[in-house]
Amino acid sequence: MTKSRNLWGGRFSQEADPSFATFNNSFAFDRRLFAVDIRASVAHCNGLAAAGVIGQEEADKINAGLQTVLDHADDSAYFDQMASEDVHSFVEARLVEIVGDAGRKLHTGRSRNDQVATDLRLWLREAIDQLSNGVRSTQAALLDFADANSAAVLPGYTHLQRAQPILFAHWCLAYFEMLARDRERLSEIRHRVNVLPLGSAALAGSSFTIDRDAVARELGFESVSRNSVDAVSDRDFCVEFVGACSLIMVHLSRLAEEVILYSTSEFGFFELSDAVATGSSLMPQKKNPDSMELVRGKAGRVFGHTVSLLTMLKGFSCCEM
Amino acid sequence: MTKSRNLWGGRFSQEADPSFATFNNSFAFDRRLFAVDIRASVAHCNGLAAAGVIGQEEADKINAGLQTVLDHADDSAYFDQMASEDVHSFVEARLVEIVGDAGRKLHTGRSRNDQVATDLRLWLREAIDQLSNGVRSTQAALLDFADANSAAVLPGYTHLQRAQPILFAHWCLAYFEMLARDRERLSEIRHRVNVLPLGSAALAGSSFTIDRDAVARELGFESVSRNSVDAVSDRDFCVEFVGACSLIMVHLSRLAEEVILYSTSEFGFFELSDAVATGSSLMPQKKNPDSMELVRGKAGRVFGHTVSLLTMLKGFSCCEM
Amino acid sequence: MTKSRNLWGGRFSQEADPSFATFNNSFAFDRRLFAVDIRASVAHCNGLAAAGVIGQEEADKINAGLQTVLDHADDSAYFDQMASEDVHSFVEARLVEIVGDAGRKLHTGRSRNDQVATDLRLWLREAIDQLSNGVRSTQAALLDFADANSAAVLPGYTHLQRAQPILFAHWCLAYFEMLARDRERLSEIRHRVNVLPLGSAALAGSSFTIDRDAVARELGFESVSRNSVDAVSDRDFCVEFVGACSLIMVHLSRLAEEVILYSTSEFGFFELSDAVATGSSLMPQKKNPDSMELVRGKAGRVFGHTVSLLTMLKGFSCCEM
Amino acid sequence: MTKSRNLWGGRFSQEADPSFATFNNSFAFDRRLFAVDIRASVAHCNGLAAAGVIGQEEADKINAGLQTVLDHADDSAYFDQMASEDVHSFVEARLVEIVGDAGRKLHTGRSRNDQVATDLRLWLREAIDQLSNGVRSTQAALLDFADANSAAVLPGYTHLQRAQPILFAHWCLAYFEMLARDRERLSEIRHRVNVLPLGSAALAGSSFTIDRDAVARELGFESVSRNSVDAVSDRDFCVEFVGACSLIMVHLSRLAEEVILYSTSEFGFFELSDAVATGSSLMPQKKNPDSMELVRGKAGRVFGHTVSLLTMLKGFSCCEM
Repeated sequence: MTKSRNLWGGRFSQEADPSFATFNNSFAFDRRLFAVDIRASVAHCNGLAAAGVIGQEEADKINAGLQTVLDHADDSAYFDQMASEDVHSFVEARLVEIVGDAGRKLHTGRSRNDQVATDLRLWLREAIDQLSNGVRSTQAALLDFADANSAAVLPGYTHLQRAQPILFAHWCLAYFEMLARDRERLSEIRHRVNVLPLGSAALAGSSFTIDRDAVARELGFESVSRNSVDAVSDRDFCVEFVGACSLIMVHLSRLAEEVILYSTSEFGFFELSDAVATGSSLMPQKKNPDSMELVRGKAGRVFGHTVSLLTMLKGFSCCEM
Repeated sequence: MTKSRNLWGGRFSQEADPSFATFNNSFAFDRRLFAVDIRASVAHCNGLAAAGVIGQEEADKINAGLQTVLDHADDSAYFDQMASEDVHSFVEARLVEIVGDAGRKLHTGRSRNDQVATDLRLWLREAIDQLSNGVRSTQAALLDFADANSAAVLPGYTHLQRAQPILFAHWCLAYFEMLARDRERLSEIRHRVNVLPLGSAALAGSSFTIDRDAVARELGFESVSRNSVDAVSDRDFCVEFVGACSLIMVHLSRLAEEVILYSTSEFGFFELSDAVATGSSLMPQKKNPDSMELVRGKAGRVFGHTVSLLTMLKGFSCCEM
Repeated sequence: MTKSRNLWGGRFSQEADPSFATFNNSFAFDRRLFAVDIRASVAHCNGLAAAGVIGQEEADKINAGLQTVLDHADDSAYFDQMASEDVHSFVEARLVEIVGDAGRKLHTGRSRNDQVATDLRLWLREAIDQLSNGVRSTQAALLDFADANSAAVLPGYTHLQRAQPILFAHWCLAYFEMLARDRERLSEIRHRVNVLPLGSAALAGSSFTIDRDAVARELGFESVSRNSVDAVSDRDFCVEFVGACSLIMVHLSRLAEEVILYSTSEFGFFELSDAVATGSSLMPQKKNPDSMELVRGKAGRVFGHTVSLLTMLKGFSCCEM
Repeated sequence: MTKSRNLWGGRFSQEADPSFATFNNSFAFDRRLFAVDIRASVAHCNGLAAAGVIGQEEADKINAGLQTVLDHADDSAYFDQMASEDVHSFVEARLVEIVGDAGRKLHTGRSRNDQVATDLRLWLREAIDQLSNGVRSTQAALLDFADANSAAVLPGYTHLQRAQPILFAHWCLAYFEMLARDRERLSEIRHRVNVLPLGSAALAGSSFTIDRDAVARELGFESVSRNSVDAVSDRDFCVEFVGACSLIMVHLSRLAEEVILYSTSEFGFFELSDAVATGSSLMPQKKNPDSMELVRGKAGRVFGHTVSLLTMLKGFSCCEM
């Protein structure tokens, strides 16, 4: 990486230490923001044009350039051959290669701080929608199971001791309810994610009179942030999201645990399909519920992410973004 | 504790081991549910009477008895002198002492499983309201600070390096926004807490035709649970609550961190009042921001509780409640 | 609490706000350090006398006074009636009541920072020894079980599917091995706990030439700390201890989980004694493994404490102790 | 992946569901065990030969084949083109391609359970050595700093308020001490990692009389595991390792925090070299301590891993490995 590729560098007389440059490079992480970074850049470009900060012709040129960059989204070689500090530098460098110095004007009135915040919110909004659909599919599968076995009866347990008989369908619907709460939570978090931070600049707000409501509408945001210091440092929604994922994992882990138990030869209520079980190299008679064990085991990773994010957020004051 | 004090004990021929009895005793923890346990019992009693399971006269007697028990809420000797396995056994034992065998009928159509769930929800609903009021007071204090210093300017920092000047009021309002999100989260959680589980019995639902909607109305619940297996095992709301508290602590911790920093002699923007600082035994010139350090330090405890609860919930399947 | 009871207060013109005073008061927590605080004070007093900082007669008087204070260790009224900021202020105030102004000399050459560190290490050393003994007793019980059932065979499971038969004794000894590692860890941590920090003062070291090795010997410490800035801020050993406890809980939780499973009617290998099980109010045929469930459930609390302490330690730089 | 590539599959009549196969595939994770898996396989092969289970000629052929497989360690195409369930299947499949059916005999007397445990210990032993060297280098750098600035004085802070002056070297040596404890911990953990589990088979021990002490010597293990059920399920050392890493991160995070603080214009004690700082796109006068912020921020990830591993371990009983 040469210094000329950085978006900053004014007072610096010395090159970055290579090991620091590697350590500081976030492109392996934030490369996944590529598409949303371009989408946000198009909206910002339109905002700059509408405010008269750049001309419409220039804006059209920039937007066409951004579209050309975006066309490489699935071309992994495109990403690998260009060293970049982060996805924002990468996109800007590619844009400048295509449209020349006009590309540099795109950074007018925004900072990486509000750019990161905007990208992250766009990306997470999509992730929430995908996850919510996945949870709904699981709910539908539970309903199908219940429907296909409407007369089946299971022992109901408390303290893992037989208590009272229940319908298998009633058991399925218990998990349906848990997942319904999960979807409700995701929907509430989506509302808090769906706020435009762009216009906050580094922290004090942009001095250009860009119509933030118009930018928000273009990007599908429901509202605009009210305080620039808060907007660039707010990552609450990440913790909320991972917290909601933790509860989803609690529910799936419980479900997996019960399936494992009820599939033992001792309980013997369920038998896993060959399609989702594995065998043993030493004991060919066995049928192992690896799929369920993996679901259960992965819960720990999500809990761990909750701790990671809380610790990280606690450590960063607003004055350190 | 003698076995006759337990609500169970049918097939048991041997006394509980004293160290197990101590270990298993939850009265030191759930004693705080005393008032809500009685409130839920009154509503259940009215439900039983309305369904004709017990007579109105009996119900009146039981309710009067429960009121008498409740009158001891602030009498710590009352609690200390009676060994009880948990708050539910305690209340029932006291009730029977007052109204005799009629008191035992109160347990008809409910189990400790749905009783615990109901009490916990009533208790947490109050805790949420108190916390939310506390957060609002902090917001009000921030507004007052901003208002009283409306012309004051602070350096705005990024990476703890001076970036751009901001109004002190702008800095205050950043925290106002964080706390506004906190209150929004609490309000959403309250909605999920505010659901009546009573009627689920141990897990399979009560066979008595008690009007659950009427019981819910009496207790101020907005709705009734839909699945009894889920209702007795659902503790999602506890994780959600502690998760929301974790974010509140992140915000207060950041605020405390900035106050500590800006109160150093090097930064020198703030000076803590004597009323919220301490001195040093060896160095009388010092003024220590202990209050802020404590706020910051206590965040870790709340994060820890999130982990505790997630781990606990993950370990308990529905079949183990 | 009046200001005169604080060990500090020089430049302060205003009383502490009552809610801050309550919040800042640690006596409810550190009261458990009472006995070790006095033990450390006696050793410090002897160190001051040996260095000629105080006279031997004065030292004898102080030590006798400290012994009189210690005699109240089991008198809860003694603690309740005196408001104190922390256990150190409490002990000093009681001492001054008994021996007069001589008592104030005890604080010469030490600060609350190294006092807290010393007390904590003495207290934890005892806690480690108690815990290690408890673990050894559990190992002995496992050996007894193995011995008393030396011919019994269990199915060995992998993935909760029957794999190969194993001796019940082999199963017991697996847990014996886990607990053996636990004791090894505790013993290594004890070595790092067993270091004298006293003499570090607030952070820069005491200017009095007290023989720290002699003080260490008197208190049973194996060595003295080498760097005063590190010594007052080091709490690594607390995290290490809670980490070791977390692994103990992992092992006990696994054991409990297997006991619960093998005690179900479906597996039916074990039956819990009445002495460590509970019954059900609604279903008298049941025998619930509450004791094992509690063991398993409490693991989460210990994991949570690990997170709490790590978060707290991370937040406190050396310059903030 | 076709079923014939699995090490198991006897009773299965149906193909694995593709999404389950993807989910269950661990090759992306355990590929890093490639070199140690081969090293352990060579030692196992020698053990089988010494016990007469396979002939010496066959053993030589297998070992030569394993060496050929290992020669591809740096050839990423080699790994990418072959779908495998895990690294063990991958190595065995490659071996059979080279030496034919003789390669299948290598799995005699071992199971994937003890293979995973052995590989993991070999791998972690190297990771510990590397990390310990890194910590030692950091200690050396601190000594150099201290030495090069032996007369420099810093204000010593408590509660971030100036307390007493200290030597800069004294401050450096405080961190030296913390890192010394870190290395001590790593060395103790290495001792517990360095135990051979091979010979435990799935859980009940191998029935072949392989000289485990000889295998241990060949692999550099200090001892052999004593109980097969424990040996295949023990992952304590992973938690211990991540716990020790968490404390290392606490220390580095504190160091980073102090460097950030002392590099502000307000404190002004330090100035970061251009080589480890970044600038700002909007504010060219700035010099940001990103390197230090990243160190501090990454602590949260390590804390999170501790929680992940504890949660995972708690969930897996011995009977589920």
